[in-house]
Amino acid sequence: MSASSTTVDPEDPIFRLHEGGKLAVTSTVPLTSREDLSLAYTPGVAKVCEAIAANPALVDDYTWVSHTVAVVTDGSAVLGLGNIGARAAMPVMEGKAVLFKQFGGVDAVPICLDTQDVEEIISVVKALAPSFGGINLEDISAPRCFEIERRLDEELAIPVFHDDQHGTAIVVLAALRNAARLLDRKLSDLRVTVSGAGAAGVAVTKMLIAGGVDPARTVVCDSRGIICGSRGELTGAKAELAALTNAEGRSGDIAEALRGADVLIGVSGGQIPESAVAQMAPGGIVFALANPTPEVHPDVAARYAAVIATGRSDFPNQINNVLAFPGIFKGALEARATAITDSMKVAAAEAIAAVVSEVLTPEAIVPSPLDPRVAPAVAAAVAAAARRDGVARA
Amino acid sequence: MSASSTTVDPEDPIFRLHEGGKLAVTSTVPLTSREDLSLAYTPGVAKVCEAIAANPALVDDYTWVSHTVAVVTDGSAVLGLGNIGARAAMPVMEGKAVLFKQFGGVDAVPICLDTQDVEEIISVVKALAPSFGGINLEDISAPRCFEIERRLDEELAIPVFHDDQHGTAIVVLAALRNAARLLDRKLSDLRVTVSGAGAAGVAVTKMLIAGGVDPARTVVCDSRGIICGSRGELTGAKAELAALTNAEGRSGDIAEALRGADVLIGVSGGQIPESAVAQMAPGGIVFALANPTPEVHPDVAARYAAVIATGRSDFPNQINNVLAFPGIFKGALEARATAITDSMKVAAAEAIAAVVSEVLTPEAIVPSPLDPRVAPAVAAAVAAAARRDGVARA
Repeated sequence: MSASSTTVDPEDPIFRLHEGGKLAVTSTVPLTSREDLSLAYTPGVAKVCEAIAANPALVDDYTWVSHTVAVVTDGSAVLGLGNIGARAAMPVMEGKAVLFKQFGGVDAVPICLDTQDVEEIISVVKALAPSFGGINLEDISAPRCFEIERRLDEELAIPVFHDDQHGTAIVVLAALRNAARLLDRKLSDLRVTVSGAGAAGVAVTKMLIAGGVDPARTVVCDSRGIICGSRGELTGAKAELAALTNAEGRSGDIAEALRGADVLIGVSGGQIPESAVAQMAPGGIVFALANPTPEVHPDVAARYAAVIATGRSDFPNQINNVLAFPGIFKGALEARATAITDSMKVAAAEAIAAVVSEVLTPEAIVPSPLDPRVAPAVAAAVAAAARRDGVARA
Repeated sequence: MSASSTTVDPEDPIFRLHEGGKLAVTSTVPLTSREDLSLAYTPGVAKVCEAIAANPALVDDYTWVSHTVAVVTDGSAVLGLGNIGARAAMPVMEGKAVLFKQFGGVDAVPICLDTQDVEEIISVVKALAPSFGGINLEDISAPRCFEIERRLDEELAIPVFHDDQHGTAIVVLAALRNAARLLDRKLSDLRVTVSGAGAAGVAVTKMLIAGGVDPARTVVCDSRGIICGSRGELTGAKAELAALTNAEGRSGDIAEALRGADVLIGVSGGQIPESAVAQMAPGGIVFALANPTPEVHPDVAARYAAVIATGRSDFPNQINNVLAFPGIFKGALEARATAITDSMKVAAAEAIAAVVSEVLTPEAIVPSPLDPRVAPAVAAAVAAAARRDGVARA
């Protein structure tokens, strides 16, 4: 790391704002008299404990569990900074908790784990689970994140959601729905190239397919090029993608992958040369989501594409997970959902897209991350989908 | 459990107060503009993460970790209710968190674990440790609590404190100091009988000795009678007590243990017959701390003793842990202590005792649990002791 990136300037507004952290735990009940103490604590509290011991479902009514999520990381893939560890991940997890509360009214507790062992992470989160209504996994590197999420989702009866995968994927689907509508194209007709097969790339590809994109017309690239069955070394999520996508069995580099493509979705962190972008069909869609440096600069993308989005707040159409996760957990918790299903995720994407559907322009295919209408709309759609899917307990 | 103890009456003020729980997580920073978002979250937050990655000690300055504790239980010994499990323990842990904030200004997060395996509890708490400035263990049954606390204290560089042991012990020492002063007796001259050798009994005995009581004049009883070397079956904490106390090698039942005693400290949950109490030296001290039913009713104790305390709020001299734990963690966190030493605990007891030293009467040997002077006084004494002991980092 360069000196400039690690030197603390206490006068820098960023450091000033972070002094003492960004969160507090507060009481929602009065505690100023002996009477208060005897209701909220001993001896009164024993009555509530006994009621929950006799009927564990009452924990949802008489504790904060049902409106609280753990934001869990192992610090292995934090923002674009990589494996910086548990302590250095905390400012991001606190920020996430701030956003959970601000937009979703969800109480979120940052949990940064001092282990990067898959089995240990799984057993720690399972042990914590009675304390929380949901688990938001965050900034855990691929492919470890796939196994961790899959196992926790199977073994816990509360929602488990890896935001780097599904949060991004949901907002991409929302943006692509609106971009296609703007261009008067059907999702199922679009030729889609996804550049990047990490946590976000895998989830984006699956989400787009769940949302109506044709897997046969979809091609995914990793750093070695197009993912296809003829690459014998593929395992896990990439082998799954090879079987699912690329029906024509194309192989080659990113330029080959973009030949004739209507849509480029960059979730790689790498750079894509202009000559490759030039292979796309004209008038298409480029989402270049790497932060802080998009895979294709929006000015370059504009030479070839009609609709452009990035992950940055200083260009139009910011693909920001904050459009998804607060509303998703708000809805899942309100429905007391036991899981977050694919159709709950698709419903979230449709709800995000619908917020801007009346005023669609190429510069506004997604709502602002601060738009207060988004989380309630997402929550309502997610809760309804949970009830349709039979995973709601309320 | 009887029907009356587990039936929910939603109109009962206790249940009404507990609806939705007693805690919230709140943001301490503004988040209403894109500028706010870019400081508290991406891209600005990356600067803080990089600074902590380069210098992990900065986590104390730029996150909430240094003013946050985990209140951790496995639900195995909750209040007097026994092993009611993780979910049913949550209302107590939330109450504890409310008290931490109210009195100590400490942010506390309740963590109820879905395991009662000693090794798993230790590894889970170690994995969580980077997220917290301290660990308050709560309502974990003996003898498991001894091993869990000892190992965590050894293996973590943050304060670890089992409140059921040391919180009680500190307040008992504070009360005994004032009772002895009131009776013009020296602690080291008192003949002390402790009834109960569970988590609290073991800790009370050790704390009183650390605070000046003579181990040779101290006798501890469990349900089988006086703990002494001739009882061959003793292991662990009880074997340690047999070696430490009871220099005369007395054996027998609680009546024998009380013969000539100046002080009875009941931390057993059982009942002590009046005939046994009658064996005490006249004009002594009885602390009968079982809740809700003291080992000796205060009216009975008053026939034999000059100073009486209980664990109940409806009699004078309530021995309540809330006098200790908020100030202890406030002080330990302010000093950024790496542990809570015996002299920090003794300092806490002295500070609690000193709050009432000007107005000592037999009915007021400890402050009210709501006395706002206590936690700041305890915190200052604990932080100073941490610095004297060389365990402070600030």
